[in-house]
Amino acid sequence: MPHDALIADAAHDAGIDLNVPCGGQGRCGRCAVIVESGEVRRRSTLRLSARDLEQGYALACQTVIESDLVVTIPPQEEITRHLTTEKTAAKISPPFAYNARTDQNVRKYFLEIAAPSFDNNTDDWTRLRQALRASAGEAFPQNITAPLTTLRKMSRVLRQDNWRVTATVELSDDRAQILDLVAGDTTNALYGAAVDIGTTTVTVYLVNLLNGEVIETAADYNAQIKRGEDVISRIVFASKNGHGGLDELHQMVVGTINRLVETCARRQHIATDEIYKMIVVGNSTMLHLFLKLPPDQIRLAPYTTTANFTPRVFANELNLKINPHAVVQCLPNVASFVGADITAGVLSSGTYATDKLTLFLDIGTNGEMVMGNREWLISCACSAGPAFEGAGVQFGMRATTGAIEEVWINGATHEPTLRVIGNTKPRGLCGSGLISLLAEMFITGVTDKAGHIVIKDESGRLKDKAQPSRVRNGEHGPEYVIARASETAEDRDIVITQVDIDNLLRAKAAIYAGYQMLAQSVGVNFDDVEQILIGGSFGQYINVEKAIQIGLLPDVPWERFQFLGNTAARGAYMALLQETARAEVEAIAHKLTYLELAADNAFTDQFLAAMFLPHTDLTQFPSVQRVLINKETSVSGNK
Amino acid sequence: MPHDALIADAAHDAGIDLNVPCGGQGRCGRCAVIVESGEVRRRSTLRLSARDLEQGYALACQTVIESDLVVTIPPQEEITRHLTTEKTAAKISPPFAYNARTDQNVRKYFLEIAAPSFDNNTDDWTRLRQALRASAGEAFPQNITAPLTTLRKMSRVLRQDNWRVTATVELSDDRAQILDLVAGDTTNALYGAAVDIGTTTVTVYLVNLLNGEVIETAADYNAQIKRGEDVISRIVFASKNGHGGLDELHQMVVGTINRLVETCARRQHIATDEIYKMIVVGNSTMLHLFLKLPPDQIRLAPYTTTANFTPRVFANELNLKINPHAVVQCLPNVASFVGADITAGVLSSGTYATDKLTLFLDIGTNGEMVMGNREWLISCACSAGPAFEGAGVQFGMRATTGAIEEVWINGATHEPTLRVIGNTKPRGLCGSGLISLLAEMFITGVTDKAGHIVIKDESGRLKDKAQPSRVRNGEHGPEYVIARASETAEDRDIVITQVDIDNLLRAKAAIYAGYQMLAQSVGVNFDDVEQILIGGSFGQYINVEKAIQIGLLPDVPWERFQFLGNTAARGAYMALLQETARAEVEAIAHKLTYLELAADNAFTDQFLAAMFLPHTDLTQFPSVQRVLINKETSVSGNK
Repeated sequence: MPHDALIADAAHDAGIDLNVPCGGQGRCGRCAVIVESGEVRRRSTLRLSARDLEQGYALACQTVIESDLVVTIPPQEEITRHLTTEKTAAKISPPFAYNARTDQNVRKYFLEIAAPSFDNNTDDWTRLRQALRASAGEAFPQNITAPLTTLRKMSRVLRQDNWRVTATVELSDDRAQILDLVAGDTTNALYGAAVDIGTTTVTVYLVNLLNGEVIETAADYNAQIKRGEDVISRIVFASKNGHGGLDELHQMVVGTINRLVETCARRQHIATDEIYKMIVVGNSTMLHLFLKLPPDQIRLAPYTTTANFTPRVFANELNLKINPHAVVQCLPNVASFVGADITAGVLSSGTYATDKLTLFLDIGTNGEMVMGNREWLISCACSAGPAFEGAGVQFGMRATTGAIEEVWINGATHEPTLRVIGNTKPRGLCGSGLISLLAEMFITGVTDKAGHIVIKDESGRLKDKAQPSRVRNGEHGPEYVIARASETAEDRDIVITQVDIDNLLRAKAAIYAGYQMLAQSVGVNFDDVEQILIGGSFGQYINVEKAIQIGLLPDVPWERFQFLGNTAARGAYMALLQETARAEVEAIAHKLTYLELAADNAFTDQFLAAMFLPHTDLTQFPSVQRVLINKETSVSGNK
Repeated sequence: MPHDALIADAAHDAGIDLNVPCGGQGRCGRCAVIVESGEVRRRSTLRLSARDLEQGYALACQTVIESDLVVTIPPQEEITRHLTTEKTAAKISPPFAYNARTDQNVRKYFLEIAAPSFDNNTDDWTRLRQALRASAGEAFPQNITAPLTTLRKMSRVLRQDNWRVTATVELSDDRAQILDLVAGDTTNALYGAAVDIGTTTVTVYLVNLLNGEVIETAADYNAQIKRGEDVISRIVFASKNGHGGLDELHQMVVGTINRLVETCARRQHIATDEIYKMIVVGNSTMLHLFLKLPPDQIRLAPYTTTANFTPRVFANELNLKINPHAVVQCLPNVASFVGADITAGVLSSGTYATDKLTLFLDIGTNGEMVMGNREWLISCACSAGPAFEGAGVQFGMRATTGAIEEVWINGATHEPTLRVIGNTKPRGLCGSGLISLLAEMFITGVTDKAGHIVIKDESGRLKDKAQPSRVRNGEHGPEYVIARASETAEDRDIVITQVDIDNLLRAKAAIYAGYQMLAQSVGVNFDDVEQILIGGSFGQYINVEKAIQIGLLPDVPWERFQFLGNTAARGAYMALLQETARAEVEAIAHKLTYLELAADNAFTDQFLAAMFLPHTDLTQFPSVQRVLINKETSVSGNK
């Protein structure tokens, strides 16, 4: 084995071709091998964690052989996953030792009631209430009510199975409301649904309220998408035709929720009628549309919502296809652009309860963020736009089969290597793929600092060394070809255009400017932020390194980042299980200070400064600075 | 002037024909004259009050001339009215010094709210609640809620007149609910409706909630009548077609109420949208149908209602055409056949608050009654049937134009004299007319004690001395001709048949048996009953004397009777004005002991004993006994 050679070169000479998607620059980590024995010198360990090093990992393209070696080539996918998702979303399971009889405010009681007689022919309603109080114990509220719809069927149901009935009851501080009454004993089934209405994606968790477990989840596009991709276009549409648009959008999202609930219920073979509780989160606009509250003022200065705290309603008021008597509660919003998805996220992420100075980011169609700890909380929102959700980008798509989720570009040839969800031919790029692509294009010089696709270098030569050209002038200006037609699912080139990149820059600049404004407003230095919690279903697939390289995430040590997955849905789930958790979200909404950026020039300044890769001020991104220097070195070393 | 002659005879001789409808038996009082000076001997003063006597009144047919006289013949109608309606229904006016700001729980507040700005862009809902609290003062509840329907229009309404709005609020102990929000200042108008749903007649009072006055009333047949005249047939109909019948009956009564409310509002030029509160009373079946609660069990042993206390609902839940956000509350029932009309009547009659031992009777389609005082209350109901409301009687009708309301029969000729409402040709008989007719037929021997129409007397002669016969065998057996075709509005004989009389006997016997059972159950002698309060719109036109003669009312001194008119509607009106009065009705409903007669043999015995005129035991009706003796004397004296 030739000493002083790179492991990658030695392997090549031995007939073993290791993948080096980044062209041997030590950036992608895809050529990591395990040095079982022998001496090596690692030029770069950028892609390796301390634990990786302990286990003997080395990057083949960056490691010089100094003695005879025994090297193992691991399954490459594993190590990559390990690197990019070191801290993954927590599994969905009850967040505490759940006890349906104490935590849950919707409960079932099986009652065997004495039939009326001439000696006691009091009315059915009194008889039912007396039986319920006797069964439920002393702490049960004296004030027992029922909606008219329940009273209307009571007489029949009581007699259907000889005065054996199951009452589903909603308990609050001072009263119990009998939501529903059915014949016989059905106490072995009681379900709830936690719903996150995203502007793009609606997520439903179907929950067994008896043991607290999520038994099924489903997600799908919000049907409203066909009426506009972002909240502003939805609000505009809602005001059309004398608010006929509002009605249409309302019905669309209710339809989406109904389909998802139906899917979950069918898979688990349960009747949707057994779903008696629903907690709903979403941004303020989504909740307005869900409740059919006019959202007009959300987009008009000074940007007010109709209501941040909305009343608990019944399922039949909204045409939800669960039990018509089910209680449906939206969690509270804070402001026009800080909605219940954020208050729920502050709950489920633990931001509200920690001693650590925390930045909580929810990167979805909008960029919403909260800074604080158990003592204080401040929030803001910036209209990032849906670029990272794939909208506003020509080949953008959701993170489903066929989506490119990671890209490496060979620094020498500009040839890309792709990882595609489902290992199929690619159809487009999802958010993480876009971040990865943008970072790679910048690091390899396909774009400059300003994000411009560089067709020719400074000496006037075509920048692209590959044949035929990866970088070209397309229909909409400069573009980079990520996959050629023959390699794709739909037989057409997958490209990223200058327009796409500009949209992505705006999105990331808005988010960056947002958390800088939060930090400034409370006089906090970013180095003092002890943890950065990232929510949003998109968040969990972000490659931190690449997100930092484009200036989306701040350049702090990686271990401070945690990806929490869908914190909004998880917060809804917690509130669904525990009434005290729901009350906690209300407390959070009251406590959250809202920083209005819309009228703030300082925000505009921050935004413009961030419209570069990674930023006009590179000193804010020291790790990226190191990569660029390293690349120069590496490239010159490879010459 | 001939001494020792009767004034009537002397007048006749002088060419003055006084009306003596009863044939000179001193029973009808229609021949009363004023003896201005001179000596007379009054054989009978049965029809004259102490005050009448003071003023010199004497019955021409019963008064013997003992010296020269100056006699004035008064307008006869006046004295008759005086005699029969000595204690009339109270006028409808606020029952206490009404203060809308303290008594009323539905109030309007005019608010001028600061518009949102970048400095304060809190949500509309918070802004509204803050303004309301600031305006309403410290005692206002912290917990302010609103139905979803109100929140949906809030955003628009707030901006419609530059943040000047009127909030209509329902206040309860611990919370305020904003029922409605409209632009501008509308605090100069706030209305409510008190509704009495009778099985036969629906009555609506339209009330100005600002000053407490009844500004309009309207009444009409309950549209449900076409689906059955009594509650039992309505209940049977309700269960038809898988409760499609219930839906139809529900819509019918709501339709009747809507029409009456609309009539009241139109007459007073107010918008029905300004009606924000409705209190509804009626018997238990009527309230079940109004709320669309299945009434099936009311008629099935052991006779239970679905609910005696029902929740306050919104007008739009019942399709009531008042403000859709108006609150609608039914007052509580006690049992299947003691409904909210009775609990409301116990309130408005003052029965619940008096020291006097009181019998409260509501004679409508059913006979419901309450005995008691401020200490205790006991009630029962007997299915009297609608005979006294004109149903089940061939020529029965409501007390409207063309109804015979009083009848006198000449003891010698059996020729009747009629008083007809509106002084038109008669069309039929209303309840008071039927009582009057039955009493007259009995006293003059047209019927016997058992109520049988006597065609021939004991010696086999035709009983009827008039030509052509007033008493005859008709299509349905024996009948008495009250008016001949030529005298009637519809050119056909108005008769009363044996079948009619049997129905009337059953009705009066049920009522008599009812209050006897009440008295027995608490060990009270009827002489100890200090006042008998009679409610029901029908009640106010009853001639006490004749009602005693047929054994409908107990034979106690007349001054103990008070006719209170529609006590049910009046109770609803009181509850509409004052929340404490509504709470009092609830207390009454809880306090009222219910005596179930359905399974009681003692009731059947009492009922059978009362199936005579006035009763098998004539000693229970000493005043009737006196009339019968007097009649014999009078008849023999006239021979």
